[in-house]
Amino acid sequence: MEKSRKAAGPVSLATIAAATGVSISTVSRIVNGQTHRASPETVTRIQQAVESLGYKPNQIGRALKQGRSRVVAMLTANLNNPVMAMIATATEAALRDIGHVMTLCDTHDREDLQDEYLQAMRSQSVGGYILVTNIKSPGLADFVARGEPVVFACRPNPYAADPDAPGAFVGIDNEAAGAAAADRLWARGCRSPAVIMPLEGSVVTLEREAGFCRRMTELGIPPDRLARVKAPGLSHLDVGYAAAGTLFAGRPGPDGILGVSDQIAYGVYRFAMEQGIRIPDDCPVISIDGSDLNGWIAPWLDSIHVPYAEFGHHIVGQLQAIWRGETPEAAILPFHD
Amino acid sequence: MEKSRKAAGPVSLATIAAATGVSISTVSRIVNGQTHRASPETVTRIQQAVESLGYKPNQIGRALKQGRSRVVAMLTANLNNPVMAMIATATEAALRDIGHVMTLCDTHDREDLQDEYLQAMRSQSVGGYILVTNIKSPGLADFVARGEPVVFACRPNPYAADPDAPGAFVGIDNEAAGAAAADRLWARGCRSPAVIMPLEGSVVTLEREAGFCRRMTELGIPPDRLARVKAPGLSHLDVGYAAAGTLFAGRPGPDGILGVSDQIAYGVYRFAMEQGIRIPDDCPVISIDGSDLNGWIAPWLDSIHVPYAEFGHHIVGQLQAIWRGETPEAAILPFHD
Repeated sequence: MEKSRKAAGPVSLATIAAATGVSISTVSRIVNGQTHRASPETVTRIQQAVESLGYKPNQIGRALKQGRSRVVAMLTANLNNPVMAMIATATEAALRDIGHVMTLCDTHDREDLQDEYLQAMRSQSVGGYILVTNIKSPGLADFVARGEPVVFACRPNPYAADPDAPGAFVGIDNEAAGAAAADRLWARGCRSPAVIMPLEGSVVTLEREAGFCRRMTELGIPPDRLARVKAPGLSHLDVGYAAAGTLFAGRPGPDGILGVSDQIAYGVYRFAMEQGIRIPDDCPVISIDGSDLNGWIAPWLDSIHVPYAEFGHHIVGQLQAIWRGETPEAAILPFHD
Repeated sequence: MEKSRKAAGPVSLATIAAATGVSISTVSRIVNGQTHRASPETVTRIQQAVESLGYKPNQIGRALKQGRSRVVAMLTANLNNPVMAMIATATEAALRDIGHVMTLCDTHDREDLQDEYLQAMRSQSVGGYILVTNIKSPGLADFVARGEPVVFACRPNPYAADPDAPGAFVGIDNEAAGAAAADRLWARGCRSPAVIMPLEGSVVTLEREAGFCRRMTELGIPPDRLARVKAPGLSHLDVGYAAAGTLFAGRPGPDGILGVSDQIAYGVYRFAMEQGIRIPDDCPVISIDGSDLNGWIAPWLDSIHVPYAEFGHHIVGQLQAIWRGETPEAAILPFHD
């Protein structure tokens, strides 16, 4: 084949296939970076044909992923949290729609594990990374600096060069969600509100709490009537339980509680039930998350619903943009007020 | 180095390191099959030294995993099921204890996806596979035939040569668990029992239902008083809800219900609550699974507790046995009666 000869008419995968004597499906895989199943000479031959014939990938976003596999790795913390499962399920379905597969790793919000999984997945040449609930770690800093294809969800990129332009990110306005929870409790007559946070908060829980407190203050609740409890616990279930113990021991107790996650609210509920406190009759409880499970077994719980099921196609759309060499805009999705 | 010369004294990793001029940690990685970071000549040199010096891996079970990575892939269906999350979490922790990492793929109980993930993980050279909720598929048949390192959990190997010796498997006696549920409902005065199954059952749900029916029959319940409902649904939540609609429409309704999974019971509960039927006062509901979440937000639910948290270290122990070249014995764990 002569170099630098432009083919007549549009160059398709079929053109490359005909020119190299290789099947279209093989050409397609190699063009998309799935080189594992072909011999090195075949890969080289096809890549040369692509260049000399001037082939451009189609506009639907087939990316030249440069030797990466079609496995995309999602890193998250706490698989036991139904929120994590919802995001994982939605994203995995969206990835399969574009011919990729997803694999999930649990970092337990630990620096060492996050770095370990980033490295393990990198040595597997995965096609991209999705970080749900990331934390700062040397490995992540390195990934961001080297421009690895990473989309962040829930918690934004802690190493974003410009915090106002966080790049590939899917989440909600947590501060506004906290404020919306305050409005809902206020509308139910709550005038001695309480908000429960985990002791080791993340930017998500901190912003939800901040929004709630800001709004309650705007609504006229004085600081000494706004209870803010941070409780320890291996899981948010324990956090809610411990905090409820503190709150309901006080006299008078709160007349409305925000748990910044569903699981915190579940923990409050267990304590209340054990003490004969009726939720919501004695004390309404509201949470932010609004997992589907609530409707089935937690009818007592009011929730600000976060559209986690929609995170999936946004995450995948942003990954595709990155593969095309673009910088996606962050997607801040509306929660249901 | 002379071939076939046995070294004086025990041959350790240090011996290999000294003989090849390579660091002990590099020798250790290569001996354990983690060859990704070393050059092919180094790998060959070390493997030759291992052979000529007669090095044997230590007895704690360091396996020669022959070029596989230390990533272990777990394949499961339905990440939204808290049971799956419990098994995943426990297994992942046990894998990290032995220096491995785990990655999780959702097969949705689909043949094509199960095969796709098996293949994707195989092309990544993962160190082992854990199949939770497997189904028959050509790819799985092939894996079993080729002796890939696979441990089965919950549902046994559908291609086991000898069904009475299922090999690497961790699960419970589902038939006995169903029978235990029958005993519990009977003890609560139930004489018009009902059992709810998903329309597309697995060996797990079929055996649980079979054990329940067998025991109720032994206890003297005539067939026309034992209601067996199979309901359709995308999830077990929907199954329970649909089945409850059928059951509570009948006159008289059941005076005790077994949902063969927690989520089926949650579905029953939602329907009952909507209809003003009190659980357990009007109709006790029992399930098999006994997820931790029940204690927090489903105090109305009685449960046969399956020790999913203990599956992890059994699964990993069996994987280590396979790596040592042994055939592990199945572990049938006791449920809490």
